[in-house]
Amino acid sequence: MVKPFIFQIVGYQNSGKTTFTTKLIETLTARELKIVTIKHHGHGGKPDSLLQKDSVKHLASGATASIVEGEGRLILQADNGHYSLEHQMELLEFFNPDVILIEGYKQGAYPKLLLLREGKDVSLLDKVSHLAVVGYWNEEIKDLVTAKLTVPIFPISDERLLSWISEYIQEQIHSN
Amino acid sequence: MVKPFIFQIVGYQNSGKTTFTTKLIETLTARELKIVTIKHHGHGGKPDSLLQKDSVKHLASGATASIVEGEGRLILQADNGHYSLEHQMELLEFFNPDVILIEGYKQGAYPKLLLLREGKDVSLLDKVSHLAVVGYWNEEIKDLVTAKLTVPIFPISDERLLSWISEYIQEQIHSN
Repeated sequence: MVKPFIFQIVGYQNSGKTTFTTKLIETLTARELKIVTIKHHGHGGKPDSLLQKDSVKHLASGATASIVEGEGRLILQADNGHYSLEHQMELLEFFNPDVILIEGYKQGAYPKLLLLREGKDVSLLDKVSHLAVVGYWNEEIKDLVTAKLTVPIFPISDERLLSWISEYIQEQIHSN
Repeated sequence: MVKPFIFQIVGYQNSGKTTFTTKLIETLTARELKIVTIKHHGHGGKPDSLLQKDSVKHLASGATASIVEGEGRLILQADNGHYSLEHQMELLEFFNPDVILIEGYKQGAYPKLLLLREGKDVSLLDKVSHLAVVGYWNEEIKDLVTAKLTVPIFPISDERLLSWISEYIQEQIHSN
């Protein structure tokens, strides 16, 4: 089995990560790549799990993990564990993906898109590793960071950002 | 890695499957066994997944599967797949369980508790394989089925049902 290629989308809250990630998924899926995603629950606390009541009852009774499935939709919930990013990727390899997209997890050690919305976000440049490309919201930010960068930088709404990343991911997969 | 022991809890809707399953999970967990569960979405259609909005956006954009994790709670959602019972068990083996409890999936080929609530439920005896034990709601049902059975039968609320199954599962694990 070929190992999936891993790519991260990072930036502070409200920097457009989810919107960009959904566009990237659409683009890569249109190129017939099989995508799975990981997202850090960004609002603190545990992600909400109230809807799958029987699964929640199973977990509350002590089960480590619980699956509910119907008509091709599967929901797996696990609680009271320690699920590192690497564990989560291992779990997703079950689906034989071509690409694992990770939204968030700034500390992760995989190639990254960094989204910069405001001037204060620029400090992230010193905090993230494996930077591959930068997306920015306005020219002011571009002026602040361009001199520091050795990777490409595009406006977040510019089609070139999406196409640069799609090409990059496809090249990495084919060179594997 | 030792293969987990698989046990099913089956019966028609409202026969007490979820309540019994949660008691069984509590009992087995108290005996230091690691339990994971699978449940068939019993109400038709797909299980509801509205709460994890970003995951749902990822799936709607074409992702095969999406994980959201926070503080030790992990929720994995997958859509538009074909996830057989065997696939689901394979996915759960990631958690290294001692026991996989399956609520529902009458057609499954694993040792089973069959719960009988009403007289009409008795026809299930001919429809399920690998019967290990029967739980019944009232004496009328007991009279209907006892002559046909070669496995133990207990009232659903009788502690002996829970303890018989717990002992059975532990014996099967140790003889493995």
